[in-house]
Amino acid sequence: MLAIMIGVTACATPAMQSNVSETVEQQILDAARSGSQGYLIVEGLTTEVGQRLAGTEAEARARDWTVEKFKEIGLQNVRVEPFTIPGWERGVETATIVSPYPQQMVVTALGGSVATPFGGVTAEIAYFPTFEDLVSAPAGGLDGKIVFISGLMDKAPDGAGYGPANQKRRSGASEAAKRGAAAVVIRSVGTDSHRFPHTGQMRYAPDLPKIPIAALSAPDANQLERMFEREHSVTMALNIQPRASGDMPSGNVIGEIVGTERPDEIVLISGHLDSWDLGTGAIDDGAGIGISAGAAQVLIEAGLKPKRTIRVVAYGAEEVGLLGGFAYRDLHKEDLINHVLATESDFGSTPAYEVLLGVTEGQEVIKAAADALGLPMGERGTNGGPDIGPIAALGVPTMRFQQDGTDYFDLHHTPDDTLDKIDPDDMAENVAAFALMAWLAANAETDFRSDTGN
Amino acid sequence: MLAIMIGVTACATPAMQSNVSETVEQQILDAARSGSQGYLIVEGLTTEVGQRLAGTEAEARARDWTVEKFKEIGLQNVRVEPFTIPGWERGVETATIVSPYPQQMVVTALGGSVATPFGGVTAEIAYFPTFEDLVSAPAGGLDGKIVFISGLMDKAPDGAGYGPANQKRRSGASEAAKRGAAAVVIRSVGTDSHRFPHTGQMRYAPDLPKIPIAALSAPDANQLERMFEREHSVTMALNIQPRASGDMPSGNVIGEIVGTERPDEIVLISGHLDSWDLGTGAIDDGAGIGISAGAAQVLIEAGLKPKRTIRVVAYGAEEVGLLGGFAYRDLHKEDLINHVLATESDFGSTPAYEVLLGVTEGQEVIKAAADALGLPMGERGTNGGPDIGPIAALGVPTMRFQQDGTDYFDLHHTPDDTLDKIDPDDMAENVAAFALMAWLAANAETDFRSDTGN
Repeated sequence: MLAIMIGVTACATPAMQSNVSETVEQQILDAARSGSQGYLIVEGLTTEVGQRLAGTEAEARARDWTVEKFKEIGLQNVRVEPFTIPGWERGVETATIVSPYPQQMVVTALGGSVATPFGGVTAEIAYFPTFEDLVSAPAGGLDGKIVFISGLMDKAPDGAGYGPANQKRRSGASEAAKRGAAAVVIRSVGTDSHRFPHTGQMRYAPDLPKIPIAALSAPDANQLERMFEREHSVTMALNIQPRASGDMPSGNVIGEIVGTERPDEIVLISGHLDSWDLGTGAIDDGAGIGISAGAAQVLIEAGLKPKRTIRVVAYGAEEVGLLGGFAYRDLHKEDLINHVLATESDFGSTPAYEVLLGVTEGQEVIKAAADALGLPMGERGTNGGPDIGPIAALGVPTMRFQQDGTDYFDLHHTPDDTLDKIDPDDMAENVAAFALMAWLAANAETDFRSDTGN
Repeated sequence: MLAIMIGVTACATPAMQSNVSETVEQQILDAARSGSQGYLIVEGLTTEVGQRLAGTEAEARARDWTVEKFKEIGLQNVRVEPFTIPGWERGVETATIVSPYPQQMVVTALGGSVATPFGGVTAEIAYFPTFEDLVSAPAGGLDGKIVFISGLMDKAPDGAGYGPANQKRRSGASEAAKRGAAAVVIRSVGTDSHRFPHTGQMRYAPDLPKIPIAALSAPDANQLERMFEREHSVTMALNIQPRASGDMPSGNVIGEIVGTERPDEIVLISGHLDSWDLGTGAIDDGAGIGISAGAAQVLIEAGLKPKRTIRVVAYGAEEVGLLGGFAYRDLHKEDLINHVLATESDFGSTPAYEVLLGVTEGQEVIKAAADALGLPMGERGTNGGPDIGPIAALGVPTMRFQQDGTDYFDLHHTPDDTLDKIDPDDMAENVAAFALMAWLAANAETDFRSDTGN
């Protein structure tokens, strides 16, 4: 026994100064870190399905693929919980500077945007360096114009720049419509300087005209700004022809490791299955599917039987408004009281640098997992992830591994979101974190559900 | 005088241990390095014209722009030497995997390719990991198939990986046609992993069927390879609709600083004005236009009068087969004997790391320039650059600043070849090199023309 302890001590990494018992937990970490369970899942999904736009037949194929994969890795109770969403699909999209410097730009429609009139709209551009400049512009004065909203996004590990930069994507169309504009182009919400536009969902405010909105790549936004440095009047022809395709099927794919002692109590780990249509949805969010399902696979392969049920959810239709997350909330409303802990990976494939708490009870279990992984606890709280938000709002306890998203928005929602951007070792580390956390939460004697929750 | 000499010594950089006289030459280097002549030219060209595909009205606008710019910076004898080229323009281009994993890929037609039949060609793919694999394949066996040629390109400062990797682009269509194929897709010739295809000129061998050829982005080529790891049969629908647009105008734009003592003797510095149509041609070759014209501008602004004539040439139609270079050779055939030295910048905007000789006489002048710039002499010879090749072959002495092209093929011939990829300081250093070299060559007492030349 002494010899074994010495051996363990000699092999221990700095991350292993923990009070986690070293037998099963270390076995989980080792199996995940030396395996490629998560990477192979995202590799399969992105290769064999590719893009998976919500509501399309591609997303349906992704559900079929995931059902098969979940069964293959040994999950139980594999099923799809279907729901219906408003479909939207991309069409022709072109942006041309007509004058003073005729040239094509690289553009993509934002999700949910209406089309321009057939053949497009040609108009003078009204340039706003930032979204705030548009919001503070007086009513009127933009009649019939194409509004261009620029503004840079800051890089940050936690993606803190996304919210502010995203205002123009979310609300740019209605703010411009309010002032009479005919259409909007924005500088892509992103942190790269490649000639890719970033798509993403937009929203129309009620009671305002719906006008088309599209995103230019960063180099094209720079180009437009240089034109405005030279000339007061720049005219663009914008033609985007996306279409609303009516009610379309989506669904959440679910699989479980049924608990041995408290099977009704759920530890939920998840990612989202749908992607935008420009890339193959590798970092957003094939990675999250691989991380959560791969974590379950590690436990199954090790023959480990958790006391509570570990549920893996592959949410549908996240990109278009967390529709899978809301559908889950609605379908499981009566059952949410049994959700002990929930989390999601939806921030790429790089490993976590801190752990965030969305619980008041049972923090010691999450801290033990963080210790075992060598991760500090973060200061901020969490709602567990985008699709967890709706159930977190009703009291489901959550935690989150805060993955390093410094470079996430270089790729996010672009054609460049492809498998080659994922490091298999990163995936393995994330799988280790999810497997360990799920295991500890499923077996913890303490509960995460406070009396005031639910 | 002593005080001045001390001042110069104190300010000298390590690069300045030279036998170049320090008055005028140092003035040139200082003016170029502290200026932005070259950067402003490429900024203007890429912004105010954008892409400049050979033979299009965009290239014609680029000639107009360049004539105006050359006049504005004070060049003399500004003129266009027109010639005619076979036009080619891009049309619709899509590549879809039909089975087993339906999805779109990102594809672009190679320059000069014929179109697929209207509506495209759908066929099983024959996969060749390298061009050599195709070349060693037996006759027949590819009847009606779409050939996919993969193969990676090595990164190197001197771009040594380009030639080998480029064989599939240049000759892939005819090698496949020889064996009965219906069409070809290649892994883009490039060193990046972004979802951009690289275009570039292809060639048809005489007496073989002309079949369409297009390039997939690197992530898409990876994706296809992963499909072949899983399945023996992969079917693609390829639709590219470029068209040959008949005889179209192109031209070389020329401007000069006329020599004071030997005005008939020419020192030629150059870049090429045309670009591919996907990006805005910033590094290829707006940079070369900025470097060569910016160098002349530095001399003009300093009021310096060279003894020989310094001629700036902005070649047209380089990308489609060095057609401007050949047109120059033909038009100036009788006059080539008067070309004392010629060079071109066509390898991006990063500074040189060595200097290459394409002369036997007058090497000491070029070495003095290299010394003053802190650059070593390279081992290899040079033909002075792509558009200089045709006159070098007839005996015109050449040299070349070997720019660092390690990352050049990340951007080359892609949509991502945009101004933001250029560092203004890099441009200034290149302008310094060109200005100094042109000045020294134009004033050298020794000649570069050997008796055996021409």
